[in-house]
Amino acid sequence: MKSSPLILLSTLFFGGLFACQNAAATDTNQSVSAKLQQQALSSSLAYDIVESLTVEVGPRLAGSDKDLVAVEWAEKKLGSLGFDKVYKEAVQVPVWQRGEAKANIVSPYAQPLVITALGGSVGTPEEGISAPIVRFETLDELKQADPSLVAGKIVFIDHITPRFKTGKGYGMTVGGRSRGAIAAAEKGALAIVIRSIGTDHDRMAHTGMMRYQEGVDKIPAAAMSNPDADLVTLMLKRDPNVVLHLEMSPKNLGYATSYNVIAEVTGSSKPDEIVLIGAHLDSWDEGTGAIDDGAGVAIVTAAGHYISQLPVKPARTVRVVLYAAEELGLIGGKSYAKDHQAELAKHYIAAESDFGAGRIYQIDFNVADKAFAAVQAHTGSMQDNGVAPGNNKASGGPDVSMLPGYGVPVASLRQDGSDYFDYHHTPNDTLDKIDPEALAQNAAAYAQFAYLMAQSDIELRPLTPKAK
Amino acid sequence: MKSSPLILLSTLFFGGLFACQNAAATDTNQSVSAKLQQQALSSSLAYDIVESLTVEVGPRLAGSDKDLVAVEWAEKKLGSLGFDKVYKEAVQVPVWQRGEAKANIVSPYAQPLVITALGGSVGTPEEGISAPIVRFETLDELKQADPSLVAGKIVFIDHITPRFKTGKGYGMTVGGRSRGAIAAAEKGALAIVIRSIGTDHDRMAHTGMMRYQEGVDKIPAAAMSNPDADLVTLMLKRDPNVVLHLEMSPKNLGYATSYNVIAEVTGSSKPDEIVLIGAHLDSWDEGTGAIDDGAGVAIVTAAGHYISQLPVKPARTVRVVLYAAEELGLIGGKSYAKDHQAELAKHYIAAESDFGAGRIYQIDFNVADKAFAAVQAHTGSMQDNGVAPGNNKASGGPDVSMLPGYGVPVASLRQDGSDYFDYHHTPNDTLDKIDPEALAQNAAAYAQFAYLMAQSDIELRPLTPKAK
Repeated sequence: MKSSPLILLSTLFFGGLFACQNAAATDTNQSVSAKLQQQALSSSLAYDIVESLTVEVGPRLAGSDKDLVAVEWAEKKLGSLGFDKVYKEAVQVPVWQRGEAKANIVSPYAQPLVITALGGSVGTPEEGISAPIVRFETLDELKQADPSLVAGKIVFIDHITPRFKTGKGYGMTVGGRSRGAIAAAEKGALAIVIRSIGTDHDRMAHTGMMRYQEGVDKIPAAAMSNPDADLVTLMLKRDPNVVLHLEMSPKNLGYATSYNVIAEVTGSSKPDEIVLIGAHLDSWDEGTGAIDDGAGVAIVTAAGHYISQLPVKPARTVRVVLYAAEELGLIGGKSYAKDHQAELAKHYIAAESDFGAGRIYQIDFNVADKAFAAVQAHTGSMQDNGVAPGNNKASGGPDVSMLPGYGVPVASLRQDGSDYFDYHHTPNDTLDKIDPEALAQNAAAYAQFAYLMAQSDIELRPLTPKAK
Repeated sequence: MKSSPLILLSTLFFGGLFACQNAAATDTNQSVSAKLQQQALSSSLAYDIVESLTVEVGPRLAGSDKDLVAVEWAEKKLGSLGFDKVYKEAVQVPVWQRGEAKANIVSPYAQPLVITALGGSVGTPEEGISAPIVRFETLDELKQADPSLVAGKIVFIDHITPRFKTGKGYGMTVGGRSRGAIAAAEKGALAIVIRSIGTDHDRMAHTGMMRYQEGVDKIPAAAMSNPDADLVTLMLKRDPNVVLHLEMSPKNLGYATSYNVIAEVTGSSKPDEIVLIGAHLDSWDEGTGAIDDGAGVAIVTAAGHYISQLPVKPARTVRVVLYAAEELGLIGGKSYAKDHQAELAKHYIAAESDFGAGRIYQIDFNVADKAFAAVQAHTGSMQDNGVAPGNNKASGGPDVSMLPGYGVPVASLRQDGSDYFDYHHTPNDTLDKIDPEALAQNAAAYAQFAYLMAQSDIELRPLTPKAK
């Protein structure tokens, strides 16, 4: 979305007004912002953090033993980085074990496929399921299908995820992953295997959370890699009767305790007011969780550290929150919102980094419309770091996306996600996918953002209701 | 290697001479060559063939059931494409089953690794092997190491394969794969796990053949993906005592019969003289064998088909050979050389396509030095298809590489292999890695080459001995 001329004019007007009113404070703020940028860009701290997390912990599926290793790692790491407080808050998370997932085409052309179970899926019977494939281009096509075409079959949703800088292709196809099993089971399907929600051509399947619905049969749900989806589609062109054999042994094993891990740089004059910068600590289990969301952990942790080292601490408290169990349904984020409900009125603004390590090119807000121009002007120094002013329609990121519902302003620091969905939720989510320079640019932007927000005199509330 | 001014001069001289002597024939040859090029570039035949092979057969490890499915596929496909003869010749091939391969770091940081067994490897005991890792940068470093540093450990050769258009990085590192187990076992190692011989950063391990040696213990041999090798190296930087657990269950199961599948366009005036264009039919078992070597199969098959459709057949016989069991040690190629020894004096020239589907940019020969300029001139029309004249040091390709030892001239049609070793010998060797236009350019080049060689009046023998 581009800014209208009217918004640009009002930006200039309020920006100018703001500059007149607070010239001295603004100058100090902007010079500290520039120093934070310089420090972050010349430091390897963010990369060192994500290297440490991926090497010393690695995969850390929420509810697993490694999840608690990650929590311990986070407490220790945050504890070593100059924060005033480090603590954790318990979160109940579901325990799901991946087990094995195997699939092969039985006929007309016997071939193995590369699949992975979707998070939360039930398993197949031990002997597996063998059934013909019925292919749909999209979830909508499945929803509109005659149940007689689906009953007794394995549904294959073949929706290709397109590549965009914004990553919006994911939103176009992910419904098939999250809600496909319900739609398929409602029509009597035995299982569902979707084309991976990913923009790559690697023979790796993309996992990710799926849902069931009360009253609808729980059927096994998996994803196949993009090359496998191509293969099945080419088989179906030759013979509409393609039989798939599926064996999956994931298990849902109740609940376990995990933790949101939190660190703070206490505000110098408004310590009870919070600027929240977050990321999620958990990861899927097949990679080492480097881009999702080791990068975010590194970015906000490094940003908080830089602020902790300032000779004069900012007015508000900067709170770094490393959320639990984002992958399993924003569980840490929802838990935080509930547990901190009484304090949310004191949350000045919140933002989460959870989109890999691509460079930030834009900052969007969700603040009162009357505050938008002023807050854009106030964060104008971020442009030196490549961050252009954006729109007033930010979601803030997954784990803070519920906060605007409680009146909390949020910001989205938009990253270049062109290749994010090549690696997302696959074994390929490893350290080598992170460009250290781009990561440092992210840490700089979060440090600038958090500092400037912690110093801001702008009233960001009440949020302007958004048109749906 | 660049041509010297002397070679360029002699090219002009002999080329000019040749043009004077055979102007009319040359004109016809070059105009047929141009037509073959045009036909190949405007046809989807080569892509259709590799699609058919990868979809209808897929992985076809020599000695497996699928290998025989591939042989049947090849006979049928070649039989449908206008060749005068299609036949097969039995080849005895070893039977090796991959089984499972699992590895995980036990300490200091428990993490799973992605590995694959190397072809021919023995398995571990059922309970696996747990031992400290000892890391070497190269095979040579391992060879020079004190045995006391290696005994009782798992050797890790961490040699990074560099990317080159020519693919020469493979030759720089592959010794660790083929001969590493011998060097490691000679010093008392329990197993070897190398960094994959591949230029990618995908979390996929690259398989490929390894060797044992009489009198040296056979130890399990595997490769880990490049990101896993990075991970282990970063762990070793933190703690020199990294313990790996390895479980592998491959099996060597004796021998089976496979086949070289052969098709011919019978020569019109010298039917007993052979221009051989080859590729190998077998593939590794983890991808669908698209670039290695479905592409080659498609290229030489399509090239042969285009020649079969000419109104006037060329003088010599064009023989398309789809070799068995190249991956297991050039077994089909060696078998062909032995079985056809009596006929090799009548092999005018041979070339194999086994380097994926990247565009051909150069043609090299191994012919008599006195014939080199003339044969370059005679194939000059290939320049219109992007194929520049090269050197006189060709190997001809793996399965024909032994033929110069019998006096047979060979040519190498050099392909752009910049990304070949990203996918080579991994699950990622799938159809989507092939650019249909580049594949058609290859088919055009092989059709032109085979036709021009089948029409050539140049005496290519005796081969000039090459300096080593």
